[in-house]
Amino acid sequence: MSSRPLPDGEELRRLVDRAVAASFPERPYPERLWESMLYTAGSGGKRLRGSLVLMACAAAGGDWEKALPAAVAVELIHAYSLIHDDLPIMDDDDYRRGRPTNHRVYGPAIALLAGDALQARAFAVLTAVENGAPPQVQLAWVRELAEAAGAAGLVGGQVVDWESEAGRWEQEERGKVAGRLEFIHRHKTGSLLRAAARLGGVAAEAGEETLTRLGVYGSELGLAFQITDDLLDEVGDPAGTGKAVGRDRRRGKLTYVTLFGVEESREAARRAIERAKAAIEPLGEGARRLLELADQLVGRSR
Amino acid sequence: MSSRPLPDGEELRRLVDRAVAASFPERPYPERLWESMLYTAGSGGKRLRGSLVLMACAAAGGDWEKALPAAVAVELIHAYSLIHDDLPIMDDDDYRRGRPTNHRVYGPAIALLAGDALQARAFAVLTAVENGAPPQVQLAWVRELAEAAGAAGLVGGQVVDWESEAGRWEQEERGKVAGRLEFIHRHKTGSLLRAAARLGGVAAEAGEETLTRLGVYGSELGLAFQITDDLLDEVGDPAGTGKAVGRDRRRGKLTYVTLFGVEESREAARRAIERAKAAIEPLGEGARRLLELADQLVGRSR
Repeated sequence: MSSRPLPDGEELRRLVDRAVAASFPERPYPERLWESMLYTAGSGGKRLRGSLVLMACAAAGGDWEKALPAAVAVELIHAYSLIHDDLPIMDDDDYRRGRPTNHRVYGPAIALLAGDALQARAFAVLTAVENGAPPQVQLAWVRELAEAAGAAGLVGGQVVDWESEAGRWEQEERGKVAGRLEFIHRHKTGSLLRAAARLGGVAAEAGEETLTRLGVYGSELGLAFQITDDLLDEVGDPAGTGKAVGRDRRRGKLTYVTLFGVEESREAARRAIERAKAAIEPLGEGARRLLELADQLVGRSR
Repeated sequence: MSSRPLPDGEELRRLVDRAVAASFPERPYPERLWESMLYTAGSGGKRLRGSLVLMACAAAGGDWEKALPAAVAVELIHAYSLIHDDLPIMDDDDYRRGRPTNHRVYGPAIALLAGDALQARAFAVLTAVENGAPPQVQLAWVRELAEAAGAAGLVGGQVVDWESEAGRWEQEERGKVAGRLEFIHRHKTGSLLRAAARLGGVAAEAGEETLTRLGVYGSELGLAFQITDDLLDEVGDPAGTGKAVGRDRRRGKLTYVTLFGVEESREAARRAIERAKAAIEPLGEGARRLLELADQLVGRSR
């Protein structure tokens, strides 16, 4: 059904890179704003979210090229959330992916506004007449992404995360803290991965059952991904993440590792990956790439 | 054609207030995030943008009640932009509408995130299945608002405004500065007013010519509104705006008044209002309320 087969991981990453870059205007004004937007949105990274959109579309039997606008939009939302996360009034981070953070280059005001503009741009990209997607697909995309990016999704997770900073959680009951931590991970990271998988399904015009399966996959993958990130902070490697080892623990930050320790966290990640894989196994051969992605991800922290 | 006639200005304002409040969930989580969102979005103000959506819908021959989701969405975008504008990394304002600004109450991190969530929420409100708007109207709404809120609209205007702060413009060639100032006003304020008017027209399923007329009206109204704001800063009254008189001038801020003086600014506002009214006069009796609104607005600074 696909016009051409789904490229492999590295080619897929480059493809998302190119699609993001191509979504920017040629002679942008105000220049500095667009430059700041592109500084983060165009700087690559793993492109996990964009690639996931394309893989999920293929898994649902669709032509992955039709999912490209959604892949771009999800990456723009991700980029905006990174910029705002790093701001001095949030985590106050100086480096990301081995480069100075957006606000270190453009100043916090422009960085703030670049994030705001990237969010609006995501919805513009999804609904552009020239992106070729049928109206009902564009509309379903917006519904999914607006929900995932908002207070009931990504931002909700960030708020609970923010409120759990700085060791206050250490005085609370462990079961309650564990529930909150899962909420954080499922929302801060899980919401957007869930949306990415579902957006791919929407591009393939998949039915509700397939969308639900893809959504569960994305959500569990997100949980596993975030636990793995917590593990990488504790056990290394700094070259890969660009962050110092043990930083979360020293900051008293609530993470799987600071709450459960390394072994129990590894087990939790493994279980989430199993749930992710189980959800999409019924999709058959088309879902092979998603199964491989899940296995790769859990291998990151070994 | 309307199910009931368009209420008068004060009733319209209250109606938008209620629609915004009703768009919030009953048991929101995380509570503090939603509280922060509602603190600004629910705090009223003139509701110029939301009212404009409804008036424009009626002017285009539509049932204004059908435009309510768009009125809410435009107010949510406006609220987010106010929150971000007031942040310590932007204008660092402590008061707005006579109350402490969002970040003074909830802290800058939550305020930042509340703004982010309000923007996402605007697109969710526009596309909610239960809002009753036909799919093609929802989709056209998203296209209009995403464009108006982004780098080519509202945010673009804010960036150029930000870069013009602090007296640097005083050394530049006057014609160039005047062009830039018009760009700021037409984008920072004009984009959202233009979108508000067009969104109302879209709700009425108006044709391209009517949408263009409404758009010009909104854009010119926005320019006049912003010039009037500049005038109010210079000539008062502090009770109405909640700001001290002459603040822009002392800060070396680029405004119509600091660049052209009071008389020339009044003339510029008057001309913009004339252009606004001329654009919609062909719409006939339905546009009467828009004509009145334009006249009221120019009266503000007399």
